Amino acid sequence: MIKYPNGLTYNSKEKKNKKSNIEISFSSANRGMNLEEDINFSNEYYKEKDICVITKRPTPINIVKVDYSKGAKIIDAYFEKQSTTDYNGVYKGKYIDFEAKNTKNKTSFPLSNITKHQIEHLKLVNKHGGISFFIIQFESLDKIFLLDSKFVIEQYEHGERKSIPLDTFFKFGFEIKRGFNPRLYYIDAIDEAYFEQ
Amino acid sequence: MIKYPNGLTYNSKEKKNKKSNIEISFSSANRGMNLEEDINFSNEYYKEKDICVITKRPTPINIVKVDYSKGAKIIDAYFEKQSTTDYNGVYKGKYIDFEAKNTKNKTSFPLSNITKHQIEHLKLVNKHGGISFFIIQFESLDKIFLLDSKFVIEQYEHGERKSIPLDTFFKFGFEIKRGFNPRLYYIDAIDEAYFEQ
Repeated sequence: MIKYPNGLTYNSKEKKNKKSNIEISFSSANRGMNLEEDINFSNEYYKEKDICVITKRPTPINIVKVDYSKGAKIIDAYFEKQSTTDYNGVYKGKYIDFEAKNTKNKTSFPLSNITKHQIEHLKLVNKHGGISFFIIQFESLDKIFLLDSKFVIEQYEHGERKSIPLDTFFKFGFEIKRGFNPRLYYIDAIDEAYFEQ
Repeated sequence: MIKYPNGLTYNSKEKKNKKSNIEISFSSANRGMNLEEDINFSNEYYKEKDICVITKRPTPINIVKVDYSKGAKIIDAYFEKQSTTDYNGVYKGKYIDFEAKNTKNKTSFPLSNITKHQIEHLKLVNKHGGISFFIIQFESLDKIFLLDSKFVIEQYEHGERKSIPLDTFFKFGFEIKRGFNPRLYYIDAIDEAYFEQ
C-alpha cells in the first residue's frame, strides 16, 4: 500500500495515479484500507445529513519558496508534523477532537508515531471540556476502534511499554462498524462512548 | 504592507525578510497590523495560561508534484481557499469557530472575500451548538470587533448591500482590546458576547 503524506487532496492523488499506479490504489485489496479517506467521506456524509460538522485539518506545510511570477506557485516546501490532531469539530454541542491511525500490528497499537505535542494538545482539550479520542484501525484484523484519549495519554506518559495492547481496545474501546455510506459509523461509537450513559 | 497568503510560518517569513525587506515587515507602521499573527500569538498565550485551546487551521495546499528523491520536497503546489474558517477550538466546554479579516475600509466591512462555503460552514456550526463569529479589524480606525456570525450570514444571504456597516459593529459587536500579552483580549469579548448573560 502506498503511503501518501496526510492531506493530499483526492484530486492530486488521482492525478498521480493516472500516470503510473492506478491499479494499486483502486484494487480490491486496498479497498477500505485507507482510513483517512474513509473518515473524510464519512465526514461529508455526516455533514450532508446534518449530524455533525467535523473536518480534517489540512497538513501543515513549511513553505520555503513561492514563485509569484506564476500566480503564487509553491516551488519549495516540506510537510510538517501536525502539532495538534488531524480532526476536530462539533457534535451535539460538544467539541470533538481526534487522531486517526492505522497499524499493521496484530496484537497492539504502537505509540511511536504519536508526538508529545499531540498528547499535550489532547490533555488540554480534555481539561477544557472537549471530547477527545483515537480512531485506530488494526488493518490485519480488519477492526476499527474508538478509544478515549485518556488511555493513550496514560500509556504514553506512565506506561512501561510504548504500545497499547489489543485487549485494551476490546475492553475499553468501542468498535466502529463499516458501511457503504457512511463508510465508517463512527458517530455511533461516539454516542455509545460519550452520550449514552 | 506586503500581503502573504495565510498560514506562512513565522520561520519562512523570517527567511524571506532577511534577504530583502526586513525593514518593511518590522517597521513601526506595520506593528500590530497583522491580525493573523496577533491572533496566533494570543492563542499561544491563552493555551499556556490554560484558558482555552484554539488553533489556526493550516492553509490548505493543493499539491501537484513532490520530489521524493530529496526527502519529500514539494516542488509544485498552489494555495487553496479555506472552505471552513481559519480558527477553531474549545473554550469552557464549548466549540468555538471563527474567521478573522482585516479591512482598510473605514465605514463598512465588505463581504467580498468571504466564501459561500464558509457561510455554509458557519450555519452548520451554529445548528450543532457551536459558537461562531468573525473578528474584524478596521485597520484605518485601529478598532477590532467580535461580531456573531448570524449578522454576517444574514447580510450575506439576504442583505441588499454586500457589506456590513460599521454601525452594526458598534451596536451588536464587542470591541476587542489590544495588549502586550495577549496581544488581543479576544477571550474577554467572547465572555461578554456568550457567557455573561
